[in-house]
Amino acid sequence: MKNYSLLSKDELEALKKEFEAKYEEKKGLGLKLNMARGLPGAEQLDMEADFFNTLNPTSEFKSEAGIDCRNYGELLGITEARKLMGDMMSISPDNVIVFGNSSLNIMYDTVCRSMILGVCGSTPWCKLDKVKFLCPVPGYDRHFAITEQFGIEMINIPMKSDGPDMDMVEEYVNNDPSVKGIWCVPKYANPTGITYSDEVVRRFAALAPAAKDFRIYWDNAYNIHHLYDNDQDNLLEIYAECCKCGNDDIVYKFCSTSKITFPGSGIAALGTSKKNIDFIKSVITIQTIGHDKLNQLRHVRYFKDFDGMKKHMKKHAVILRPKFELVHKKLEEELGGLGIGSWTNPHGGYFVSFNSLDGCAKEIVAKCKEAGVTMTGAGATYPYKKDPFDSNIRIAPTYPPIDELEQAIDIFVLVVKLVSVNKLIEEKQF
Amino acid sequence: MKNYSLLSKDELEALKKEFEAKYEEKKGLGLKLNMARGLPGAEQLDMEADFFNTLNPTSEFKSEAGIDCRNYGELLGITEARKLMGDMMSISPDNVIVFGNSSLNIMYDTVCRSMILGVCGSTPWCKLDKVKFLCPVPGYDRHFAITEQFGIEMINIPMKSDGPDMDMVEEYVNNDPSVKGIWCVPKYANPTGITYSDEVVRRFAALAPAAKDFRIYWDNAYNIHHLYDNDQDNLLEIYAECCKCGNDDIVYKFCSTSKITFPGSGIAALGTSKKNIDFIKSVITIQTIGHDKLNQLRHVRYFKDFDGMKKHMKKHAVILRPKFELVHKKLEEELGGLGIGSWTNPHGGYFVSFNSLDGCAKEIVAKCKEAGVTMTGAGATYPYKKDPFDSNIRIAPTYPPIDELEQAIDIFVLVVKLVSVNKLIEEKQF
Repeated sequence: MKNYSLLSKDELEALKKEFEAKYEEKKGLGLKLNMARGLPGAEQLDMEADFFNTLNPTSEFKSEAGIDCRNYGELLGITEARKLMGDMMSISPDNVIVFGNSSLNIMYDTVCRSMILGVCGSTPWCKLDKVKFLCPVPGYDRHFAITEQFGIEMINIPMKSDGPDMDMVEEYVNNDPSVKGIWCVPKYANPTGITYSDEVVRRFAALAPAAKDFRIYWDNAYNIHHLYDNDQDNLLEIYAECCKCGNDDIVYKFCSTSKITFPGSGIAALGTSKKNIDFIKSVITIQTIGHDKLNQLRHVRYFKDFDGMKKHMKKHAVILRPKFELVHKKLEEELGGLGIGSWTNPHGGYFVSFNSLDGCAKEIVAKCKEAGVTMTGAGATYPYKKDPFDSNIRIAPTYPPIDELEQAIDIFVLVVKLVSVNKLIEEKQF
Repeated sequence: MKNYSLLSKDELEALKKEFEAKYEEKKGLGLKLNMARGLPGAEQLDMEADFFNTLNPTSEFKSEAGIDCRNYGELLGITEARKLMGDMMSISPDNVIVFGNSSLNIMYDTVCRSMILGVCGSTPWCKLDKVKFLCPVPGYDRHFAITEQFGIEMINIPMKSDGPDMDMVEEYVNNDPSVKGIWCVPKYANPTGITYSDEVVRRFAALAPAAKDFRIYWDNAYNIHHLYDNDQDNLLEIYAECCKCGNDDIVYKFCSTSKITFPGSGIAALGTSKKNIDFIKSVITIQTIGHDKLNQLRHVRYFKDFDGMKKHMKKHAVILRPKFELVHKKLEEELGGLGIGSWTNPHGGYFVSFNSLDGCAKEIVAKCKEAGVTMTGAGATYPYKKDPFDSNIRIAPTYPPIDELEQAIDIFVLVVKLVSVNKLIEEKQF
């Protein structure tokens, strides 16, 4: 295929005509397809049926430590759940709090707590004139929404192939005391799919923050969400690196089983230094008497241990792999060499990141919507929903059944071509 | 029995000797008994075994509205759970948000949200010089702990036999714009066991707050937690009363199934005006993607409807009634007529409230502890843990098996006698 930028205006006009006709045809189908959010598909959920056997009327409801999981208590989580989630985060159970059903909720509360009560004794952020967070972009929209809600200023940090631009991160963190945090999805990043290199992790661990209440918000959401048995990314464990640098308190690690068992009915956890744990415990002991220990018990009994969880993830991979492969194949076949877009081919996680020609993303998403394909909103991967290039689109291929995914991606590539051709024609007119 | 205040110093000294000997004997038993917290007992938890059958591998996981409860979404809760909890609160499902496992957590977050973001557009409380809450006393320690953590000034409001002193409540609420809330447990109150009268509820509904962001925090934790089939208290539904007065937004109703199914693994809900719901929804949509819908489904399937829940509560009453009756009997038999204490005889809830002679509560709790009986800390039922009379002690008879409860209450009455006699002797010396 010829690169579209090399085509004449007439050639582009001819393509435009062709794509428009095809697009009208697609619109006529009245489809309703969804590639917007990182939801597991029905097949994945059905696979978990045995989960509903883990606790039954004849079960023993005592934890290993003899706690009756049906009653109040155990604010930090039952021992075996702390161990399971600790193993998942490669951190000691003593450094883990198991919360409720949502790691997003833990992150929100962590920022919220810092706003009102500060961090381990620091000035509450709501008393400060200015609080800033660094936001590697493109990134996760729900992270940005948290900091936006609290009026925290967000600063874009470009993502490179091995992680955030660390020169920029160091410059900000080590010099600006109003910089209190950075949002990270360090493995199979949302949406780029990349994994931070060892070098990047080490530079994070070695930061010398100007603010003593600066923390790295390490949302390892896709830790064990590999697509392949062999081609797996490896992420250096950050907490141990931080400790080596004497930066024990600098990182909060978040994880959940939302995309391992059930979104909304999983368990979520925080892993961090003893000092941070003690402070957070002193606050949350007022917020709740404890989280859902029966659900903790279900998870521990279902997986037995972290090895069981990893084995289980292979079953998810079997379902997800063909979806990602289909997206990749379609993008390569239909858009390869045209010079109108680039995309990622991740080894894990839940997303493919697509970059269109500058100034086309909004139009592409709108036209997909018109033809019955819902994508993540253009701009969503940037703070304040403002993509300065209007270029990044997050593709979430996991939810639709594979035949619907194929229909959706067919429409997507067609729309990309149509909008790009329009853009190129427009440019030729000046 | 003769009123102790009428005894001579010698008679008191003789009693002291007798009680001290008995106390030493009890201490020698090395007991470990707990009447501290309102926990259901093992028998109650065992009764719920069928709960673990409600979802099994062959279940249908779709909600009535066709939502797959195993996946993300439904921020406000599934329709049938909103209905169940709405029925429990006598409020329309449209006015209900079903949250996670803890109504305390909802209350905490509600205060926390007001601190940072205000209430429906009002100034965030953290930007104000002074924020105050009214605290009917004695009351629930965990309520007071929330407002204390956020640095909110707490004002004691005496509890009368029909609810808080409403003259005082009106005086504060209608004149002081820094008064932003009042903590209420309106039925089978913690710890006094009283239920607010219709008149008190109507006066609450008719408040004319100086602060537009004033709200009534109506924690109806013991709504259907009756001990008797006939002697049941009736609480006038407050939201409808508020609406009659044009005060639609003034009340937040909280409830949970913590003491209906399982503490820590129940579901909790908020019931309030559409305007409040909309505001809270706009905030929590950033905090979480949704709460545990599978647990909502479990509850709905277990109870079928509110009638099912009420029937179920009779089973709890069968277990709890003898415990409360035992406590009452022992208090009457051992302390009746002695003039050294008064106590409540509630028709429901989880507590008996005991008032010792002024200046004796701390000593009684400490001496009980020494003899192996853990009580709720003296002072806990007051803001800042400061009981100005050092008199109120909360008895929680639900958790221990009945034979242990008997041992515990025997020690309690003995200690009350001993400490009171000491107190009276001391007074005679001046």
